[in-house]
Amino acid sequence: QMGLAENQLCFNLIHEWLLKNPEASICTAQGAAEFRDIAIFQDYHGLAELREAVAKFMGKVRRNRASFDPDRIVMSGGATGAHEMIAFCLADPGDAFLVPTPYYPGFDRDLRWRTGVKLIPVVCESSNDYQITIEALEAAYETAQEADIKVKGLLITNPSNPLGTIITKDTLEALVTFTNHKNIHLVCDEIYAATVFSQPEFTSIAEIIEEDKICCNRDLIHIIYSLSKDMGFPGFRVGIVYSYNDAVVSCARKMSSFGLVSSQTQYLIASMLADDEFVDKFIVESRKRLAMRHSFFTQRLAQVGINCLKSNAGLFVWMDLRRLLKEQTFEAEMVLWRVIINEIKLNVSPGSSFRCSEPGWFRVCFA
Amino acid sequence: QMGLAENQLCFNLIHEWLLKNPEASICTAQGAAEFRDIAIFQDYHGLAELREAVAKFMGKVRRNRASFDPDRIVMSGGATGAHEMIAFCLADPGDAFLVPTPYYPGFDRDLRWRTGVKLIPVVCESSNDYQITIEALEAAYETAQEADIKVKGLLITNPSNPLGTIITKDTLEALVTFTNHKNIHLVCDEIYAATVFSQPEFTSIAEIIEEDKICCNRDLIHIIYSLSKDMGFPGFRVGIVYSYNDAVVSCARKMSSFGLVSSQTQYLIASMLADDEFVDKFIVESRKRLAMRHSFFTQRLAQVGINCLKSNAGLFVWMDLRRLLKEQTFEAEMVLWRVIINEIKLNVSPGSSFRCSEPGWFRVCFA
Repeated sequence: QMGLAENQLCFNLIHEWLLKNPEASICTAQGAAEFRDIAIFQDYHGLAELREAVAKFMGKVRRNRASFDPDRIVMSGGATGAHEMIAFCLADPGDAFLVPTPYYPGFDRDLRWRTGVKLIPVVCESSNDYQITIEALEAAYETAQEADIKVKGLLITNPSNPLGTIITKDTLEALVTFTNHKNIHLVCDEIYAATVFSQPEFTSIAEIIEEDKICCNRDLIHIIYSLSKDMGFPGFRVGIVYSYNDAVVSCARKMSSFGLVSSQTQYLIASMLADDEFVDKFIVESRKRLAMRHSFFTQRLAQVGINCLKSNAGLFVWMDLRRLLKEQTFEAEMVLWRVIINEIKLNVSPGSSFRCSEPGWFRVCFA
Repeated sequence: QMGLAENQLCFNLIHEWLLKNPEASICTAQGAAEFRDIAIFQDYHGLAELREAVAKFMGKVRRNRASFDPDRIVMSGGATGAHEMIAFCLADPGDAFLVPTPYYPGFDRDLRWRTGVKLIPVVCESSNDYQITIEALEAAYETAQEADIKVKGLLITNPSNPLGTIITKDTLEALVTFTNHKNIHLVCDEIYAATVFSQPEFTSIAEIIEEDKICCNRDLIHIIYSLSKDMGFPGFRVGIVYSYNDAVVSCARKMSSFGLVSSQTQYLIASMLADDEFVDKFIVESRKRLAMRHSFFTQRLAQVGINCLKSNAGLFVWMDLRRLLKEQTFEAEMVLWRVIINEIKLNVSPGSSFRCSEPGWFRVCFA
């Protein structure tokens, strides 16, 4: 199973924690007295303890180089729900977001369906290691203008899924300048923030905001977060919209009635993340184990002559099989993909499914 | 606190169950081995065990006079999410649903906001105990036609919030005939099904469907369910769309990614509802306690000369204070409401907030 970006490397730590904290489940002799108060809870703000714990966790994951305000944390049903929520808040049907390629295919499915929002690809290429350039952004923006489509924002994923790379601080600053100049929103999906396992260091958009080096209208900046990847709990559907814009926080909070996190799970996660010792150990250990897996995996690939884009984050690598293609087309990529699936029995994902602009790249999950 | 429809009358039974079944929390020595498999779970179908348990529970709550297919059960974030989901599935922006008055005010907020759907009131009156008449339905349908609005369905709540009454079998049959004749959908909110505590017996739309007495296109019938009222777990956000229409099931299931129930909570509820002995006892005991509270409450009101609409379900009564109004207007209703809130310190809800067509009625929660 190398197609699904799941993070189960540190479940033994979580298992240990659970055994030490049975009351967190509100279902045992130690905790059942809380059950009533939790089960009936349905405030759209979510449990204050959870928002505080998540805000602190978000800071820790970013090495405390940015801080987060619990009152800007809005709950939603997983990152999927968070993305759709921000699209509802920021755009009207027919409006568009620019999205650098390659990008998570779920965006096409989730962001557009009920909102009527459009996604316009910003073409990034392997020649410069898929860095997002202002030229590519301007070109995508132009395309929208010509088609008479209103661009409402730019959606970036940092660290990137599927690339496993991070966006440099310089690039982030350029993106803030670009979006400010156009007066459009910058939505930063940072759901892989805790998976940055080696240098260069990760820069969150929150740090750019706080440093005041560049001119920045905070009302245009929004972060999507989740515990599905960083903690490995996709089943718990803990999605977060963190916005610097008061009107968006207020609007999103009203929308959260459609996808609030179960209060049972809110309570469990709040208890877990409030345990500093556990969280610190988890973050360090998770990085260490991801680094080891990544190194082992890429070395083995290198031994058989397969290179990957240099990366330092995520639960996957971006594998370069261009030289194995019969011809440099997406048809040939699909042919090769079927060979990998059927003969090598490896469930990898072809670059075309991420809207990559050139054939021959595949995402492989190693976690 | 008599403004919030909460059901906490049987929490002692749930407390007992939790203490006997700590493994259901997947967080204790007995259950933590399951944690990994549950936390990562994110199939849009939801846990098969949960769908089976909920289908069985839905049947039991309806005294097994109808059966439910687990494969028609779609998860969503509470009844709120379920209602919005069905609106997205059935209607386009600008289309309308007919809704008999008085109705739950959340419909105005939740159903219309992101979907662009309209709600058209079907005026029901105290003179015939708020029964839904075909004349009122036809009048509302006509109003829509004249305004060039496409009517996509009729939304009923049975048992009714705020009335606490149930819809008779004859009326349900008439509604099915009406909606079939117009070829529009019939959406039945049955989230208070287990709160029917005395005669006359509750008839679910599921029974009408199964009996084949009247001509009925099953593709037009959909049930909204939830565990927020019947079990008293609004915090857990267990919402259900149960549709007899395969296309709607399939479409709603895809949408459920935006509001899936936490897998931790799915597992807990599946374990709880699979315990037949517990469920049977819970249903009986819950009815008994609601009946007692209702009888005590209405008798005390009668002693001070206050009458309520005769009811046999729900967590509230529909209190008639018309003779206390200075004049028969909604302004006078608000004046009286403020007196009740500020001087009698009772948090009741004025009929106007339920779009009641005549002033002087108030909803009071007794559970």
